[in-house]
Amino acid sequence: MNMNDIILKKRNGAELSQAEIHYFINGYTAGEIPDYQAAALLMAIMFQKLSKDETIYLTEAMKLSGDLVDLSSIHGIKVDKHSTGGVGDKTTLIVGPIASACGVPIAKMSGRGLGFTGGTVDKMEAIPGMQTSMEPEAFIKQVNEIGLAVIGQTGHIAPADKKLYALRDVTATIDNLSLISASIMSKKLAAGADAILLDVKCGSGAFMKTREDAVALAEMMVFIGNRSGKKTVAVVSDMSQPLGLAVGNALEVEEAILTLKDKGPEDITKLSIELAGIMIFLGQKAVSLEQGKLMAAEAISNGSALTKLAEFVSRQGGDPSYIYDETKFPKAKYTEDLLAEQAGYISAIDANIIGLASQHTGAGRMVMGEAIDMSAGIILHKKVGEKVSIGQKIATIEGNEEAKVKMGL
Amino acid sequence: MNMNDIILKKRNGAELSQAEIHYFINGYTAGEIPDYQAAALLMAIMFQKLSKDETIYLTEAMKLSGDLVDLSSIHGIKVDKHSTGGVGDKTTLIVGPIASACGVPIAKMSGRGLGFTGGTVDKMEAIPGMQTSMEPEAFIKQVNEIGLAVIGQTGHIAPADKKLYALRDVTATIDNLSLISASIMSKKLAAGADAILLDVKCGSGAFMKTREDAVALAEMMVFIGNRSGKKTVAVVSDMSQPLGLAVGNALEVEEAILTLKDKGPEDITKLSIELAGIMIFLGQKAVSLEQGKLMAAEAISNGSALTKLAEFVSRQGGDPSYIYDETKFPKAKYTEDLLAEQAGYISAIDANIIGLASQHTGAGRMVMGEAIDMSAGIILHKKVGEKVSIGQKIATIEGNEEAKVKMGL
Repeated sequence: MNMNDIILKKRNGAELSQAEIHYFINGYTAGEIPDYQAAALLMAIMFQKLSKDETIYLTEAMKLSGDLVDLSSIHGIKVDKHSTGGVGDKTTLIVGPIASACGVPIAKMSGRGLGFTGGTVDKMEAIPGMQTSMEPEAFIKQVNEIGLAVIGQTGHIAPADKKLYALRDVTATIDNLSLISASIMSKKLAAGADAILLDVKCGSGAFMKTREDAVALAEMMVFIGNRSGKKTVAVVSDMSQPLGLAVGNALEVEEAILTLKDKGPEDITKLSIELAGIMIFLGQKAVSLEQGKLMAAEAISNGSALTKLAEFVSRQGGDPSYIYDETKFPKAKYTEDLLAEQAGYISAIDANIIGLASQHTGAGRMVMGEAIDMSAGIILHKKVGEKVSIGQKIATIEGNEEAKVKMGL
Repeated sequence: MNMNDIILKKRNGAELSQAEIHYFINGYTAGEIPDYQAAALLMAIMFQKLSKDETIYLTEAMKLSGDLVDLSSIHGIKVDKHSTGGVGDKTTLIVGPIASACGVPIAKMSGRGLGFTGGTVDKMEAIPGMQTSMEPEAFIKQVNEIGLAVIGQTGHIAPADKKLYALRDVTATIDNLSLISASIMSKKLAAGADAILLDVKCGSGAFMKTREDAVALAEMMVFIGNRSGKKTVAVVSDMSQPLGLAVGNALEVEEAILTLKDKGPEDITKLSIELAGIMIFLGQKAVSLEQGKLMAAEAISNGSALTKLAEFVSRQGGDPSYIYDETKFPKAKYTEDLLAEQAGYISAIDANIIGLASQHTGAGRMVMGEAIDMSAGIILHKKVGEKVSIGQKIATIEGNEEAKVKMGL
């Protein structure tokens, strides 16, 4: 088997075998197949596509390129949730406690990365004292004892994906359905859960701009998950405007807490109940999706999900008083208001622009390893469809560096 | 300008600008654009093709990536000839002396490289004493004095092509008309001649297997040459069986000498007269192609081309007695005959198979820099259409290593 023949085969439109795809991924991960051959194959894939079988083989090979998380010693059906990413998406901090409160064990490893804001792990660190790294044994023990643990990614999950993604990013080979699906699903399958809920975002602030593309991605990932023996469900949710009103790190934690107190924005409350309901159903704590949703709503209204969040924060070294009083989070030093220049109705809020502005305030990293300004970000005062009068506040940009806040504006 | 955008643009089927193509070639030659981005662009080109304008820009950029040979101090119209390569193609050694004998100055730099046999320069070195490297001044002086010089490639001609070709070779991005044309023409245009004759081979022993592909390549290269201000003509010639009867180094020199003595095989004599006739016309020593051919045939029959070959060999340090008596070339130690297993007519001789067998005898290099067995090779006794009786010799394999000769068989 040699890489030139594999590239040629795909270039000519033939289907690659499982052995050929494993040969490519193993060789590429090991550094035996050079970047330039991988790049040529990726570009050939952009034109010739991958079949469903090829996509399965690719996902499997990437999954097997690194560590496989073993969650088998956790009792019950472990359900993982993944969002394809958007602006103001703090649902993990909401649905984790809800599903856990309803009896579904949540053992989540989450990333940091680049973006409009930090990742879930970064956001959690806005809570004073919160620890986000843990030995695997302690992680599993915590899930078995309190039903919820969220830590930073440990180990070496799907290194092939990491390497390939970096290459795709600089060779115009990102936007292929199979490559995107395999990238996400290889990591999810390696993460050890029994069932997977995918929240595929769609709209200006998401990777998938159209509903059609988002549905296609959702279908492909669900196909991969189910064919790999994991019960997999996907939801396509709107990201044409930011989710909720808060975009940032501490700002989003505050909004997540408010949502668990049943005082959150309508859109995020609704989506959280839907997602958590599915997770409860997947975890077999409800006999139907409908029952799952009712249980999720109940966990908010009876306060059990908030209590679970506080328990989880406390267990990971965080100060639970912030959960009961979210006004304790320190405020940013500088704020700038964006005022309506004319009266009328908000017709659109470009989530992508809001996300970029958030990143500029210091809430998100521009380069790997950069520090994050926990209190920075953007608060929306209006959402699409709402009425504004002249001079009324539409949004507030917050941060601890004046120049960055002005740049956000 | 950035490479990712350029790749994306081509991937999406748009036409690259001259500036973008120069940016790519200059950056790639300088090592600032990595192989993987070049590979992705090349693969996108395989699918989206290059327009004629893009092909011109690419050729020009590659030509300008290295040294440009200056032949302006040679009197007269310098005509270069290039063959796309085949088995038994010793025409340079024949047409050079013919055209020169007819008054066209021939200042040729030729390669060694890998292949079924050595390159023209290797073949020349089968003549004892022959020198194939020379200072530029001496080279030009020789052409001005005797009208003919052939030396090994000097300087740094089209390094972008060298680098790109090596990349294409391992990324399944060889067989694109524009890339092939630009590769050949960038070097030809840098080589400084005023007019270019292209001999595009077609058939099993050639890169272009079909007449249709060969004609398309010929047309593209002629377009590039003429648009670049060089009078360019192409001939598509047959390579479904080897050219002539000899495949090897000394063996081909012997056949070239025989051809100049008007005792050569019919096919090579005919092609040589055609090619030399065109060169004489391009060099404006004939008023028509017909007249050029008549002059070429005359230079063979009156012995002036053979005399020119001997003069040229002598001037470059070689022993001219080998030209007048080609039987002086040392014979290989081992020979194996291939005999007809049944009576009938030869229906086909796969030039590619003969070429590979020749390489195995030691006549061609497997890896760069390898020594060549000058007397090794293959002599055909029959060509397509000829009658054979049972047990009659069809071919003889010759070489100085018994094992290699048997492997050739």
